[in-house]
Amino acid sequence: MADKRTGGLVDIIAGQTAISTVGKKGRDLTYRGYSIHELARLCSFEETSFLLLYGKLPNEEELSDYRSRLIERRRLPAALYTILEQLPADSHPMDVLRTGVSALASFEPEGYERGATAVAERLLACSSSILLYWLHYHRSGIRIDTRTEDGIAEHFLMLLHGRKPDPMHTKALDVSLTLYAEHEFNASTFAARVTTSTMSDFYSAVTTGIGTLRGNLHGGANEAAMELIEAFSNPEEAEAGVQQMLLQKRRIMGFGHRVYTVSDPRSDIIKAISCKLAEHADDWNLYDISERIELVMMRKKKLFPNLDFYSASAYRMLGIPTNLFTPLFVVSRLSGWSAHIIEQRDANRLIRPNAEYTGPDRQAWVPLHERG
Amino acid sequence: MADKRTGGLVDIIAGQTAISTVGKKGRDLTYRGYSIHELARLCSFEETSFLLLYGKLPNEEELSDYRSRLIERRRLPAALYTILEQLPADSHPMDVLRTGVSALASFEPEGYERGATAVAERLLACSSSILLYWLHYHRSGIRIDTRTEDGIAEHFLMLLHGRKPDPMHTKALDVSLTLYAEHEFNASTFAARVTTSTMSDFYSAVTTGIGTLRGNLHGGANEAAMELIEAFSNPEEAEAGVQQMLLQKRRIMGFGHRVYTVSDPRSDIIKAISCKLAEHADDWNLYDISERIELVMMRKKKLFPNLDFYSASAYRMLGIPTNLFTPLFVVSRLSGWSAHIIEQRDANRLIRPNAEYTGPDRQAWVPLHERG
Repeated sequence: MADKRTGGLVDIIAGQTAISTVGKKGRDLTYRGYSIHELARLCSFEETSFLLLYGKLPNEEELSDYRSRLIERRRLPAALYTILEQLPADSHPMDVLRTGVSALASFEPEGYERGATAVAERLLACSSSILLYWLHYHRSGIRIDTRTEDGIAEHFLMLLHGRKPDPMHTKALDVSLTLYAEHEFNASTFAARVTTSTMSDFYSAVTTGIGTLRGNLHGGANEAAMELIEAFSNPEEAEAGVQQMLLQKRRIMGFGHRVYTVSDPRSDIIKAISCKLAEHADDWNLYDISERIELVMMRKKKLFPNLDFYSASAYRMLGIPTNLFTPLFVVSRLSGWSAHIIEQRDANRLIRPNAEYTGPDRQAWVPLHERG
Repeated sequence: MADKRTGGLVDIIAGQTAISTVGKKGRDLTYRGYSIHELARLCSFEETSFLLLYGKLPNEEELSDYRSRLIERRRLPAALYTILEQLPADSHPMDVLRTGVSALASFEPEGYERGATAVAERLLACSSSILLYWLHYHRSGIRIDTRTEDGIAEHFLMLLHGRKPDPMHTKALDVSLTLYAEHEFNASTFAARVTTSTMSDFYSAVTTGIGTLRGNLHGGANEAAMELIEAFSNPEEAEAGVQQMLLQKRRIMGFGHRVYTVSDPRSDIIKAISCKLAEHADDWNLYDISERIELVMMRKKKLFPNLDFYSASAYRMLGIPTNLFTPLFVVSRLSGWSAHIIEQRDANRLIRPNAEYTGPDRQAWVPLHERG
């Protein structure tokens, strides 16, 4: 019988994957057999996304070619810029990304001449372009050139701020993209695999991923964490405020995890980055508030911070507006989704579960004019 | 351990539903406790969609109000018409619908003032408008008025053909919409529920539904059935051709079903409609070819036709182009998706299954310049 637990497919194995492991020993994360600690410390997001997409780390020539292809794919079809101009200034940025990716399918459909990896690279290259073209057009009427000669992290910061970013900022965002890149059968990835399982196209699966990531229980969590942190002006206020929220049984976003039971291995990495950014800016307030909230949550609830919690302060120190946090998650997770779409196709079977019926028994027919 | 079967969540109960039962005794279908036979024979698609959405059949006043609201919601925001004009003439119509629905979220977001049922009614009212505005603009440069004073079936045929349809054609399409309206945890509905489970918005969930329905193993099957039928010019050719395909172990679309084991209860209903349409037109060729293929499939493979098979010839006799078959499925299934989105929210739990890892063990790190 389905209880609330099976309703979430908790502990149900829904398929096989060779892409990542999450939560072995309660705290591990590997992509294609490489530990997240090594990937974050020793390589770029380009190497990580190549690893996810092609199953191996690139050598120097492969990496150089891959970077070049991404740079060449930063500009959008003219009509897609027009579409982005039509979307209202107060659109939810995730709606803009979802619509932009969906529309791109009409201009550059997947097919014999444009295979899965070509579409994946195109989306990795241009998702920031979609988002930030829309943003600047509606903020200041400027039609920005979405091509720059940089890596994905720098491209995002360049387009957002309109100037070459501090290399330390680029590195911080690059590592964050690696941390968000892949996470096994999380809801958005699993939903993208369901879409793929009907033999639908690549863009449909990615559009599903974006729409699923948009929710507060998934990608929206880092935005919710930021709102929490920014509600307080200093650590003491944060401590009192969070204790108050716990008494009111309100949900605190950015803590605990369905799969990790001991700790989220990504949290220490992003916390160190947030710390470095605070030091670099010589402004510790957000970091100190965050750390105090972490202490209260551990003391009162025995809950550890997950990736989303320290990502919030780190992103703010990079000058990223809160409503772009989840879209930035998309820029990164596109790599994981793409790997899963390709993997699902390799051994496809339609994903079609059953339901337990809890509705009315057979009802007697009542003609329209006799209905109450 | 996950084998290929669990990969498809076959026989896994993924949650509870009070909306429909599929395949009890191998062949039954009920919506909210009413048999599909009664619904198809005794009421309109408007009554059926109201039943799915609100959990009860409407009385006369409720039905009249509901019809009026749908009629008032047929026109689109001006900027959305512009967006549809930007999508290329050779777009896949499912991509157009997916993008149109996704974009509408920016103009009319779900929120406090526009709740779930308002969005559901809006999409039921205007999905044909999105599709057929785009079609006529690119086919002949005409910007059609997408408002007509009709029910959903007549609205579709009016916009498609530009003239009041034969009432018998309207009735045929209306019944077909009822048949396609709802089907428990089919792949597109289940995917929409996964999207909903992250607390994402209504449009995201519907966009997921459209993208998932697009695949050949799901909504695309009626188009594939039409291509099969139209490949033959008479029943004898069809018999020989299908036998040949079976010998080559090629997949014949429109037969068998994951959940129904005895027969698809919707098939007899749509077959009778297809028969009536042939009689009405006094042109039996498509119907006769279809029936011969049915005979061969039963004799050789013991497979029964599913809803998609006779829908193909019926739609063709209504003058509907093949590439609009799946979009028409969307117009109908919007009602079922909407009911499931609302139901998922009522007892939500994040849908996040696990995977069985089949990838490499922990890999030793190789620096970039040493990689082969």
